[in-house]
Amino acid sequence: MAQAVALVGIGKIARDQHVPALAANPDLALAATASRNAQVEGVEAHSDLASLLAARPDIPAVSLCTPPQVRYADARRALEAGRHVMLEKPPGATLSEVHDLVALARARGVTLFASWHSREAAAVGAARDWLAGKSIRKVEVIWKEDVRRWHPGQEWIWQAGGLGVFDPGINGLSVLTAIYPRGLFLHRADLTFPENRDTPIAADLAFTDPGGAEVGAAFDWRQEGEQSWDIVLTCDEGTARLSKGGAELAVDGDIVATGGDGEYAGLYARFAELIAAGESDVDLAPLRHVADAFLLGRRLVTDPFHF
Amino acid sequence: MAQAVALVGIGKIARDQHVPALAANPDLALAATASRNAQVEGVEAHSDLASLLAARPDIPAVSLCTPPQVRYADARRALEAGRHVMLEKPPGATLSEVHDLVALARARGVTLFASWHSREAAAVGAARDWLAGKSIRKVEVIWKEDVRRWHPGQEWIWQAGGLGVFDPGINGLSVLTAIYPRGLFLHRADLTFPENRDTPIAADLAFTDPGGAEVGAAFDWRQEGEQSWDIVLTCDEGTARLSKGGAELAVDGDIVATGGDGEYAGLYARFAELIAAGESDVDLAPLRHVADAFLLGRRLVTDPFHF
Repeated sequence: MAQAVALVGIGKIARDQHVPALAANPDLALAATASRNAQVEGVEAHSDLASLLAARPDIPAVSLCTPPQVRYADARRALEAGRHVMLEKPPGATLSEVHDLVALARARGVTLFASWHSREAAAVGAARDWLAGKSIRKVEVIWKEDVRRWHPGQEWIWQAGGLGVFDPGINGLSVLTAIYPRGLFLHRADLTFPENRDTPIAADLAFTDPGGAEVGAAFDWRQEGEQSWDIVLTCDEGTARLSKGGAELAVDGDIVATGGDGEYAGLYARFAELIAAGESDVDLAPLRHVADAFLLGRRLVTDPFHF
Repeated sequence: MAQAVALVGIGKIARDQHVPALAANPDLALAATASRNAQVEGVEAHSDLASLLAARPDIPAVSLCTPPQVRYADARRALEAGRHVMLEKPPGATLSEVHDLVALARARGVTLFASWHSREAAAVGAARDWLAGKSIRKVEVIWKEDVRRWHPGQEWIWQAGGLGVFDPGINGLSVLTAIYPRGLFLHRADLTFPENRDTPIAADLAFTDPGGAEVGAAFDWRQEGEQSWDIVLTCDEGTARLSKGGAELAVDGDIVATGGDGEYAGLYARFAELIAAGESDVDLAPLRHVADAFLLGRRLVTDPFHF
């Protein structure tokens, strides 16, 4: 029998991704939602998580799509009620609050899954396998998109804690940290802030690789026309381009792996697996790099941003 | 026989604290230094760590007092050469680089000690014991000092990665996280930057305590006259003030614990213990809170700062 899941925060990402992915998963079933103003047609709706948890003690798992600035309180509430929890990326507004949730999930014996949807893109595994054992010379993460197209009217993303261009950029970092054979860390970060906003619209990052490769990332939210979600891996043995956000891998110009959009299907399959195995999966490396970028970064100021 | 220690980065903190603390420790002996331009009278001097390590394979331990922006490369070099390493606070310019050092120390089977000198202040243990089991209502960390007096001419502290007012403030956070019975995390941070500097001169932080207390921190580098390094703990059972950077504890106005400055003596005693036990001690909680403050913080701009 399918396991019931409650979905919290019915916004764009919930409608575009979570609801269809749950509908397609034979092991899980969307049983109820909690959202202040929105509902999913045909699904039991609550206006907040506390009422949902009280009304439906039979729902064992909760998936949180609320913005990171307000996600912690719901995550703690669900874990304290003994429910398994899946977190949209980024898993929190701070690193320390996620540490707290990890400890709480462990104490309650439930699953906590900090999801990174881009890691489920079709060619990420192939890129990791290709990179293993190679002599890496240079790595470029290029994540450039049009914020007006992908985040129309989303004010929270521009507020302190909303991450700005790191909201998409962290997807690139989640893929980089999943495929790279070693730990990396920042040594320089230039962050460009619109003069009327609390979060950056562009970022240029330089990492140190203890293995000696030159590793950089360029994020920009002002990209019109073609959108770029690419990682270029230059090795002594050849050059690979992981593109379309991880969905396609080309080696020396030939496509060697490609596939459709199964990111959220992959996440929910993983969530079901973790619950069945009684395990948690919380990798903070992508958020730690972002925190490091703010900690270490030089701030540059640019023109104001308006939707 | 005393164990030989090499000291790297002969600046103000090395002369004021490390050299005297090593001289007073019967188990350790300062055997050599590495510093670009400075020396300690009567001690073998090298201009960089690589030459020191090559010349003195008999020195098993290295203590790093260089600024955080440049400390990683020396720490990695010393660990790779199989030496035990003690890091001044903060343990790195980024969280990720310290994770890398932890993994390296583990792989080489040597000790890595991320020191937090304020935790060794005379009344910190008494404060932790007093707080245990109390019903905490409010916590105020007040770290206000005159940057011109304590960091004269130190340009690195104003450069990206230098932490600004968090350089002293992290001492307060290192004490708070050592005495507090639970994890805490930021929910609001206001950071005030001089318009000509890359790091803040003041910060106002509000933490969430899952236990319900109101927890805040106020850091300011513009404090003339009396200097404040205090933590005020208001509980149902009474009020405690841990002052003088942790050296004195008063409960309801009566001094219950006090002592002289033994911070660096305590650190080197701990370093010797860790080496003898074959253990490491790297608690990143204070630096994680600072990274969270930059990640989450709103930026305010104030008058330019000049020494």
